[in-house]
Order: sequence, then C-alpha cells, then structure tokens
Amino acid sequence: MNRADFMVKYEEWLELVNKELDRLVVEKDTPEKDIYKAMRYSLMAGGKRLRPVLSLAVCDVFGGDMSDVIPFACAIEMIHTYSLIHDDLPSMDNDDYRRGRPTNHKVFGEGKAILAGDALLNYAFEIMLDNVLGSSKDSEFSSESYAKVLRKIKAMKIIANASGTSGMIGGQVVDLESEGKNIGADLLHYMHKNKTGALIKAPVLSSAVICGAEKDEYNNLEKYAENLGIAFQIKDDILDVEGSLETMGKNCHSDAAKMKSTFVTIYGLEKSKEMLNLVTGNAIKYIEEFGERGEFLKELALFLVNRNN
Amino acid sequence: MNRADFMVKYEEWLELVNKELDRLVVEKDTPEKDIYKAMRYSLMAGGKRLRPVLSLAVCDVFGGDMSDVIPFACAIEMIHTYSLIHDDLPSMDNDDYRRGRPTNHKVFGEGKAILAGDALLNYAFEIMLDNVLGSSKDSEFSSESYAKVLRKIKAMKIIANASGTSGMIGGQVVDLESEGKNIGADLLHYMHKNKTGALIKAPVLSSAVICGAEKDEYNNLEKYAENLGIAFQIKDDILDVEGSLETMGKNCHSDAAKMKSTFVTIYGLEKSKEMLNLVTGNAIKYIEEFGERGEFLKELALFLVNRNN
Repeated sequence: MNRADFMVKYEEWLELVNKELDRLVVEKDTPEKDIYKAMRYSLMAGGKRLRPVLSLAVCDVFGGDMSDVIPFACAIEMIHTYSLIHDDLPSMDNDDYRRGRPTNHKVFGEGKAILAGDALLNYAFEIMLDNVLGSSKDSEFSSESYAKVLRKIKAMKIIANASGTSGMIGGQVVDLESEGKNIGADLLHYMHKNKTGALIKAPVLSSAVICGAEKDEYNNLEKYAENLGIAFQIKDDILDVEGSLETMGKNCHSDAAKMKSTFVTIYGLEKSKEMLNLVTGNAIKYIEEFGERGEFLKELALFLVNRNN
Repeated sequence: MNRADFMVKYEEWLELVNKELDRLVVEKDTPEKDIYKAMRYSLMAGGKRLRPVLSLAVCDVFGGDMSDVIPFACAIEMIHTYSLIHDDLPSMDNDDYRRGRPTNHKVFGEGKAILAGDALLNYAFEIMLDNVLGSSKDSEFSSESYAKVLRKIKAMKIIANASGTSGMIGGQVVDLESEGKNIGADLLHYMHKNKTGALIKAPVLSSAVICGAEKDEYNNLEKYAENLGIAFQIKDDILDVEGSLETMGKNCHSDAAKMKSTFVTIYGLEKSKEMLNLVTGNAIKYIEEFGERGEFLKELALFLVNRNN
C-alpha cells in the first residue's frame, strides 16, 4: 500500500466516523439543549479520529462487519473527547485552545463543560449497549447471536477498563500530580502507558475481540498498539517543542511553561527521536505478522511518525 | 410490616451494600493511589443508600437472587456519588459540606474531585460488565444463561439512560441554568423528574428487569418509583427550609441563598406538604398492587416522608 492509497483509505474511514458521530449526537430542542451543543462543539471539532480509525482498520484486517465495530469506534472517540474537555479545565491543564478553537469551558463555562464531558462518557456506554441489544434481536436464542453478544460485552469491558482508573483516568491523576515536579523515566512511562496508551490499545483490542481474533493475532495486535501508543506520545512531546499554534491548533511549548516532564525533558530531543524510530519499528514488526492484511496499520505507524499535528 | 421490622430490613440491606462497596473500591498502592482515596472518601461517607436499597427491595419482591442485583445496585450508588461530587464543585453548586464532611474538592482539590467523579461513573460500568461476563461463564450457550445476560444488558441500558442527558445530567444542566432565575412549575417538575427522579426509577426498573418482572408489574413499579422520586425531592426542598446543618450534614437554606427555585419557593411550604402527602399516597397505591410482597416498599415511602435528613 502506497502513501496515497493509505490516505484515501484513512479519509474514507474518518468520514465514516464523522458521519456516524454527527448522527449519534444530535441537537435537541429540550430544556437541557445546551448540553448537546457543548457535546457537539468538542466532538465535531475535527481531529485525526485516530482511535476510531484504528477500530475500523483492525476490523478490516479480519474482514469483519464494519457495522458491528462502528458504535464501539464512536464510543471510544466520545471517551477521548470527554477526556480532552476535562483535561483542558482550569483545575487540570488550564488550556484555552484545542483543535484551533477555544476550549469547551471557554465557550460554555466550566459547569457545562464538566457536564458535557460526563455526558459523552455516559453516552459512549449508551450507544454500545444499544448496539449489543440490537445484535440480540435478530435471532434471540441462537448460540451464534449469543457468542456475538458476549464478544461485544468483552469489547465494552476492554474499553471501560482502558478509560478507568487502571487506564486513562489513572494516567491523568499521575499527570496532575506530576506537574511542576521532576519525575523519573519509570513514572513517565507509567503515566503515558495509562493516559494515552490505554485508549490507543482499546480500539485495536476491542475490535479484534468483536471480529473474533485468534490468541496469537490478539497478542501481536496488542504489541503493535502498545508500541504505537508510545510512539504517539513521544511524537506529541516532540511536537510540543517543535510545533506552533498554527500547525497544532493548540498552544505549544506548554509543557515547558507548565514544567511538565516529557520524553524531551527527560531524554532530550535527539534521544527522543531515536526512541520514536525504535518503537515505531517495533510496532511495524508486530503488524508485519499479518502480511498484506496489516499494510494499512503499518502505513499508519509511519504516518504518525511523520505527522506535524 | 411494622416500622421496627422495616428498619431492621433497611439496615440489613444498607450494610450489605456498604460491605460490597467497600470490597469493590479498594485503595491501591499505585502511582494514581489518590484517586482511590478520593473515590472512597465520598463513596464510603455514609448516606441513606436509598437507591441500592430500592434495587434490593425490588429483587426481594420477586424473590430474585440478590447476587444478580447487587452489582447493579452498587453501580447506581457510584453514579449517584459521582453526581454529588460534580454537583458540589465551585462551578456548579459550590458546596463546602456534604454528609457532614467537607466536600470532595475541599479535601482533594478540584482536579482530583472531577477525576474521582469520572472514575466512579466509569467504574459503575466496569462492575456491571464484570457481572454480565460472570453470568455467561457457567453455561456458555444455554438459552437460560443467554436470557439472563440479555436482561442484565437491558438493566445496564436503563441505568445508562437514567444517568445521561435524557436523565440525571439533563436535569443538572437545567438546574445549572435556572440558578438565580424564577422558573415555572413545569420546568421545575421537568428538572426534578430528570435530576433526581431518573436515578430513583433506575434501581427499581433495572432490578425489575433482571428479576423478570411481568409487564403490569413493571408498569406499577414504574409509577411507584415516579411518585417516590417526586416525594423525595419535595421533602428535600422542605428540609432545606426546615432543616439544619446538624440534622442534614450539609448547609441548609442554601436554595434560598442561591436563589434557587424549589417546590417551596413556587408552591409555598403548606402546599408543598400537601403535594408530598399526595404523591406519597400515589406511590403507595401502586405498590399495594403487590400485596404483602410490596410491604417494605410501602413502608419505605412512608419512611421518606418522615425523614429529617
């Protein structure tokens, strides 16, 4: 797969996700209508849609049914978006810009931004549950339909664990506590494994489970996703040093301003770039086990190394 | 059932819930350990445990298996607790006391209080999913086990809807927007139906579904819970006027201080008390359909009218 074919595929899946998110979270003319506006403001603000695209790409590896995976892909993007809204709050990272626009609380106020985050997390589970119930309706008591329902519940559990205290929220707590402190390399890795890594693994593994991956396939995908997650974070830290508001859509050099420990502050820029290449190479090694079926995910790893936002 | 027997039963179920919550959310000696402390601080702060007791009481009506219902009961209490933590934040109700102790953000700071709330909502789904997966393990492809799994997924969906934008969060948005305004009776009812009522209906209906309630039983329980929810809120508003920090464990007269519209400000104290008796009577009417099996829930409605905190 060449870069151009990869980009076409990526755009196609990104559009599919955007269309589905647009359909799932609609504005309503009810007394609580502002919550829908606030949810949509952040959810429909663009972004790479990396996580849901990972879900769909893994489904494609197995030749699975996209309609089984899309609700889970969208749920993960909702969870990701809620985490950004809460992270940006004054009592957390206190960021004014996100994806080139004022952050949610700058537009809707802190109270509603907190509730919009809560609502997106809650809604993620609502849509996954809707899909599971839908899967049970065709043939209520066939063992095939039962197996599919169970695979989806397992996928939901993978996602819930990834977004909880042993995943994303745990990483965010460590991040919050580390601000202004010099943390060691071990804690830095621990923090990112949870804060960013968990929600990059979740789409890969939940999709693999829904599509009925074999154990060795699951393990290779897990290793791929782990390395991809680390690469993603190292690149983020590098971009915070080398990027600008113009390319990034958010304030850069903010890590330094907040005295945050990053891969760059701990390892230096050159070593961070070496590490980035190393873990990207690892990710590629594991995805090459899938041969041609893994081409898109291989290109994706290379794409993330070379991104400038 | 006399009052003494009722109290014994209530205490028994309350203890069962407390023990289970204590077991489910444990402190861990990991880098994110403060999140577990913050979650436990609010979750284990006592309280009436009304919602989980309702779950268990409905299970008892059907002679159901408590172990099937307890995780859902605990999940609802976690969701209730998260909503209190977020409601108390400076950008929401800005309350300093809750259940006789400083509010979560007063102890752990705003950032961690927000994350502790997020974590409790997330964890609620994790434990329900654990239970569903557990139910599937005994006999993977029997239609009986499939039916039970589906009932539990439906219960989870009831709970997720109740805590989302069309339930609790929606009500909280209306509450946030109404502060300092004179709202009409219609909007007041709408707000409470969602903010408080939804999460009082959820334990009743989710438990009924898990225990396989018939349609007319379900409908009667729904009407019971709706009236109970309204009664609960009217009583809350009356207590805010007539109570004290000593009996309530939180600052009273706070509605007036915040210029909040309540049943008392809209209907006056006497009319509110009349309405309280009326809706309590309605709740009792619907639960009397269950005869002796409904005795506890009938006493519970009377108990809530007479409570002083």
